[in-house]
Amino acid sequence: VGASRLSATARPFRTGTPALDLFPIETWTRLAARHRRHVSATALDYNAPGGYRPLREAIATHVASARGIRCTADQVIIVAGAQHGLTYAARMLLDPGDAAWLEEPSHLGARSALIAAGATIVPVPVDGAGIDVAEGVRLAAQARVAVVTPAHQHPLGGSLTLPRRLALLRWAAEHGAWVIEDDYAGLYRSTGRPMAALCGLDTSECVIYVSSFSETMFPALRLGFLVVPDSVIDAFVGTRSTIGQHPPTMDQAVLTDFIAGDHFARHLRRMRHVYGERGAAMRHAAAQLCSDELHLSAKDAGLHVTGRLTTALSDVRIAEVAAQRGIEVGPLSCYYGVGTTPTPQPGLVLGFAAVDPPRIISGMRTLAQVIRETT
Amino acid sequence: VGASRLSATARPFRTGTPALDLFPIETWTRLAARHRRHVSATALDYNAPGGYRPLREAIATHVASARGIRCTADQVIIVAGAQHGLTYAARMLLDPGDAAWLEEPSHLGARSALIAAGATIVPVPVDGAGIDVAEGVRLAAQARVAVVTPAHQHPLGGSLTLPRRLALLRWAAEHGAWVIEDDYAGLYRSTGRPMAALCGLDTSECVIYVSSFSETMFPALRLGFLVVPDSVIDAFVGTRSTIGQHPPTMDQAVLTDFIAGDHFARHLRRMRHVYGERGAAMRHAAAQLCSDELHLSAKDAGLHVTGRLTTALSDVRIAEVAAQRGIEVGPLSCYYGVGTTPTPQPGLVLGFAAVDPPRIISGMRTLAQVIRETT
Repeated sequence: VGASRLSATARPFRTGTPALDLFPIETWTRLAARHRRHVSATALDYNAPGGYRPLREAIATHVASARGIRCTADQVIIVAGAQHGLTYAARMLLDPGDAAWLEEPSHLGARSALIAAGATIVPVPVDGAGIDVAEGVRLAAQARVAVVTPAHQHPLGGSLTLPRRLALLRWAAEHGAWVIEDDYAGLYRSTGRPMAALCGLDTSECVIYVSSFSETMFPALRLGFLVVPDSVIDAFVGTRSTIGQHPPTMDQAVLTDFIAGDHFARHLRRMRHVYGERGAAMRHAAAQLCSDELHLSAKDAGLHVTGRLTTALSDVRIAEVAAQRGIEVGPLSCYYGVGTTPTPQPGLVLGFAAVDPPRIISGMRTLAQVIRETT
Repeated sequence: VGASRLSATARPFRTGTPALDLFPIETWTRLAARHRRHVSATALDYNAPGGYRPLREAIATHVASARGIRCTADQVIIVAGAQHGLTYAARMLLDPGDAAWLEEPSHLGARSALIAAGATIVPVPVDGAGIDVAEGVRLAAQARVAVVTPAHQHPLGGSLTLPRRLALLRWAAEHGAWVIEDDYAGLYRSTGRPMAALCGLDTSECVIYVSSFSETMFPALRLGFLVVPDSVIDAFVGTRSTIGQHPPTMDQAVLTDFIAGDHFARHLRRMRHVYGERGAAMRHAAAQLCSDELHLSAKDAGLHVTGRLTTALSDVRIAEVAAQRGIEVGPLSCYYGVGTTPTPQPGLVLGFAAVDPPRIISGMRTLAQVIRETT
């Protein structure tokens, strides 16, 4: 895999950050410079609240082929990353006190978005096949919203099965509920092509699709998008001017050129290969260096892997000691709500995307030492 | 005033948009290109939620000299423009149902920010000396927040007097209330230096200062900042990751260079001169072309002027007809709350910053025709 002039500085095993050392910054810089040479005074003024029109069109084309979502450019709303999109969607769809299903364990950002919207969170258990929809219906059939990660359950991994996808959509349609699909790492899959998005199966206009360019481009860009049903386009776009307008126009324009020039698809193909290597390096290193202490899940979780600690150690304590040694790991217990019973088995969430195989291996060596020494 | 390669396309008399035809886009482009040549992988990753540290430092220095605000870089929080800042501050400081003072008439964005936060709006009248603080205390001494535009009352113009500033701060300190200072066009004043910000007088840590780079740089940049008291820094910064992280890092870095390289101060000096010319051109044109129909306020309102219609015409109707003729005017009645009594005298809000004097004159000629024909 080709060289880059960027050197990686992320610590192993940071999650949520892609292989920034391999981002084609020269291409981005060239497109940005070209765009600036042709900028007009109009381009410096306020833009459409739903986002830069050509970008919305490029994304509508992209999600059709990459995620099986058929939508118009009007349905695409540009946001400042997935977290902004989740918070925005939760605020739009929920009144304070409304019940909302949340996967247990779940993405931290989804939890904070629901808390910010004043929702009453209903934790719904997950297993190897994703969220247990039947259990959700049993616990709170009248919930207004379900926030789910169908591509890769976050953080445990595993894809939501087709029967459960259909059951989830049926529940939402029958109860007038909304499904917020957080398509975290939906473009990545360790084997084969990614399964199409849940949104692509939605015939009842009840799915709000949330995606970010943080994992596919770079986090500092702060761009993401929603795909919303026709029925709520006006409501979503109309409130954008209240909550702070559109993201910066120039970045949207350069990203449009990046997608239109096929650089995005090329970068994704290259990253799928790189993440395959990095994920394999992590699994190999864990098997060699700490197979007794840490059992990595076999489930595909996109750009990270979850490992169960075989000791009764506090995963928070291990994360603290690891941080002192320059290793960044997420304690699995922090992905659960407060007071979950039974107490979840301790574990670690380990990202493999941000650093190269040599640093994955040396990082795993340090982590193995930390676990053994902390015991 | 020097040439630019950007041609203005805004319609007269657009408000909220600066002289984009005179923005030094070449300088911005050069700084952006230089920044990109030296970008690191770290710069592509997530940045600090409060904003890019060097920008926060540059702004702390800038507001000290330009607005009389003494603050640390920690107190500066980068946001995505004033509207984002207002919404964010209102959400942080208000619980649904809390009372909030709002100037009557007021900035539309301030009103929608309070509505979004679920506030109970208490309209407080304004006169030539700004918001009537004594009346606010009489109406709702227990309000939790007051949103004010001390530099230039928005939209009527006029600066909040020193006695009222002190009374407002005294009320807030005594009642544990917050003052949100929307410093719209605070860096512009048609004669002399702008008065220092209210925030600079605050000794009780009760002012949240909101400023935007939309009027001083360009709206498509989507950058602004808050200055918050020490006591709430952690709360504000801590929630940033929930509501969608920091604005894009590269834009923040280029803006830092723009400020540090003295381009910002130079641009502001030049724009003060330009807006002096454009404001004078508008007043002259109105006096010559429609002095019977439209009485412009003598009060300094930053980048716009408010004119009272001397007929009993609906200002909304005039704005509609004007729009069909390519003229953008804000009906003054829309800046009031629903059901205001007595019904406000009809008027128009006319921006003079976005277009050059010849287009101001031709626009005023068209507007005069519209008013006469609509009568």
